[in-house]
Amino acid sequence: MSVTAARGFRAAGVVAGLKSSGALDVAIVRNDGPDQYAAAVFTSNRVEAAPVTWSRQVVSDARVDAVVLNSGGANACTGPQGFLDTHRTAEAAADALGVSAGDVAVCSTGLIGELLPMDALLTGVERAADTLSDEGGPRAAEAIMTTDTRSKQSVVTGDGWTVGGMAKGAGMLAPALATMLVVVTTDAVVDPADLETALRAATAATFDRVDSDGCQSTNDTVLLLASGASGVRPSAAELQQAVTGCCAELARALVADAEGAHHDIAIEVRTAASEEDALEVARSVARNNLFKCAVFGNDPNWGRVLAAVGTTTAAFDAARLDVAINGVQVCRAGGVGEDRSLVDLTARDVSVVVDLHAGEASATVWTNDLTHEYVHENSAYST
Amino acid sequence: MSVTAARGFRAAGVVAGLKSSGALDVAIVRNDGPDQYAAAVFTSNRVEAAPVTWSRQVVSDARVDAVVLNSGGANACTGPQGFLDTHRTAEAAADALGVSAGDVAVCSTGLIGELLPMDALLTGVERAADTLSDEGGPRAAEAIMTTDTRSKQSVVTGDGWTVGGMAKGAGMLAPALATMLVVVTTDAVVDPADLETALRAATAATFDRVDSDGCQSTNDTVLLLASGASGVRPSAAELQQAVTGCCAELARALVADAEGAHHDIAIEVRTAASEEDALEVARSVARNNLFKCAVFGNDPNWGRVLAAVGTTTAAFDAARLDVAINGVQVCRAGGVGEDRSLVDLTARDVSVVVDLHAGEASATVWTNDLTHEYVHENSAYST
Repeated sequence: MSVTAARGFRAAGVVAGLKSSGALDVAIVRNDGPDQYAAAVFTSNRVEAAPVTWSRQVVSDARVDAVVLNSGGANACTGPQGFLDTHRTAEAAADALGVSAGDVAVCSTGLIGELLPMDALLTGVERAADTLSDEGGPRAAEAIMTTDTRSKQSVVTGDGWTVGGMAKGAGMLAPALATMLVVVTTDAVVDPADLETALRAATAATFDRVDSDGCQSTNDTVLLLASGASGVRPSAAELQQAVTGCCAELARALVADAEGAHHDIAIEVRTAASEEDALEVARSVARNNLFKCAVFGNDPNWGRVLAAVGTTTAAFDAARLDVAINGVQVCRAGGVGEDRSLVDLTARDVSVVVDLHAGEASATVWTNDLTHEYVHENSAYST
Repeated sequence: MSVTAARGFRAAGVVAGLKSSGALDVAIVRNDGPDQYAAAVFTSNRVEAAPVTWSRQVVSDARVDAVVLNSGGANACTGPQGFLDTHRTAEAAADALGVSAGDVAVCSTGLIGELLPMDALLTGVERAADTLSDEGGPRAAEAIMTTDTRSKQSVVTGDGWTVGGMAKGAGMLAPALATMLVVVTTDAVVDPADLETALRAATAATFDRVDSDGCQSTNDTVLLLASGASGVRPSAAELQQAVTGCCAELARALVADAEGAHHDIAIEVRTAASEEDALEVARSVARNNLFKCAVFGNDPNWGRVLAAVGTTTAAFDAARLDVAINGVQVCRAGGVGEDRSLVDLTARDVSVVVDLHAGEASATVWTNDLTHEYVHENSAYST
């Protein structure tokens, strides 16, 4: 399960006391090899957290021996002291594991703008290093949760090799290379260049197509580690397919557990002039608060879909736009189509299909509705 | 008061039965001259309502004799029939007023994607034409309300001449030339070219700086009509200043009455490399749902401000960013500043000041918080 499904990996999750709830809050994922290859994508937010700055550097030589992750604090907007704290965290893990600090990636998540309680964190790192196990994946996945209501894990099995992963993310889900904390592991024998290619292709097709609330985090990190422990070398295409499958399952789990969501909404834009156009339109709909409120109210308010489409630069003729919601063609040729009262929005899954009639490209973006619980979670608690 | 404060204008508001509540829902503003000059700005949404398409054409010769406005239906995404309905509305008003239909602008607001009940509307237009009066401004302002809780009116007095206006708008407030239905009138003697210049300058500095929910309407229209009835010719600068003053008051009233808002938030970006940069950063913060939820919860969560700043292309160094909330410098040099618990967010007005330290330009965008009432209004009712 999770990051320990692939051979050559151990993990742990411990209580370090960073979360006032007393829940698991520090995790380590250790790659025992024989290979220690790694690839990563990070947030494109220009205000990036100290652990992102650090891990970018660590991954630049395509080698990662271990990853330390903590919830209970993002260590973002914490200045030079925040960077020193990330450095000390990597060094503490390196000492405990007998590796170089320069090969230890660090990920943090939680409130922005507060320094981490370093005594508690470093004690937790030592404890996690002492309790690493090849069955530690689920506890590691639990330790990175913030407002997540459940941990996210995924496993894809190849012929004698495995890809497994864990993810956290419940708010600030918006695409920009990566969108959350994710660690994916594989025991396949791979070339570092293929690993990089597989991860970029997988994130572009999965995490980059998830947009819960249009808000982009300072800490987003997706790491892919390869141990080679299976002794099996899949083709580059097989590797990419398995990594994409694992990331797709994690991405869907993130949307399904997005803060306060009652509905998962798949926005499919078809017959676009280009994939870029299709994505721009799908994202515009996915970020329209009015439409997302309407879905929460089980109201198939397709006018709000068209209003969102109209704000884009995509190629289309407004008099040819079609919109279907849950299979009912509520808008035809830019005007009134089938009776909107035929749309049943009681199920959790909602399908919105927009036809631009401008070409042959398509794309889907996943989002969710805007609910009272979203407002409550993000107003009543600092996260 | 309102559009009848300036001489040469009559107005009316009547109950036509478009709103199920039985409230006023059809208005006419009539310019009795001697001049019938007009300027307008419209939504930049590419999915534009039939009345926008019609009124664009009407205003193209800079002459408008009357404006018909209705709430209770946007007549957007209604296809060729919707355009015919707008045309019939203009003709009915023209017949009743003894003017040309080509000089009658039409504005509609309400639910997108439904045809208007034309019998009721045309009867209402006749009744409104019969009850025009130079004290009709307040009733006209009331007739264009949708989810507005109060009508918006403004008057600015010059030396012997006057500018007055009315506006509606409570959701779908996002800038793009215009942002709502607005009619502004003046009895100043003006050149049509000066009228156009004054209106564009005024909207750029007022309605374009209001962003309630990031959602852009299909029906936005701002009309400025000049009768010349005062016989006084102000300078172009005086005219522009008065029109801007009137629009600024209306714009602030729109934000103050935005759907479900508990806080009015002024986001001021300073020391930017350019005004464009300042605006981009201010709008990014204004559209950040997480920050807007935090303000609703009286939580000075400045990390969410920095996360929003980081998504822009503006010139800045993340390690030099400063943020003050209600006068408390909570973020200094990209890191922790004064204690966030010193910020008092209990008052309705909230000030956020972001310093980019990249130049000398600045800009302010007005928005509001994201509340339970916003979700309720936009999920429980089709608007």
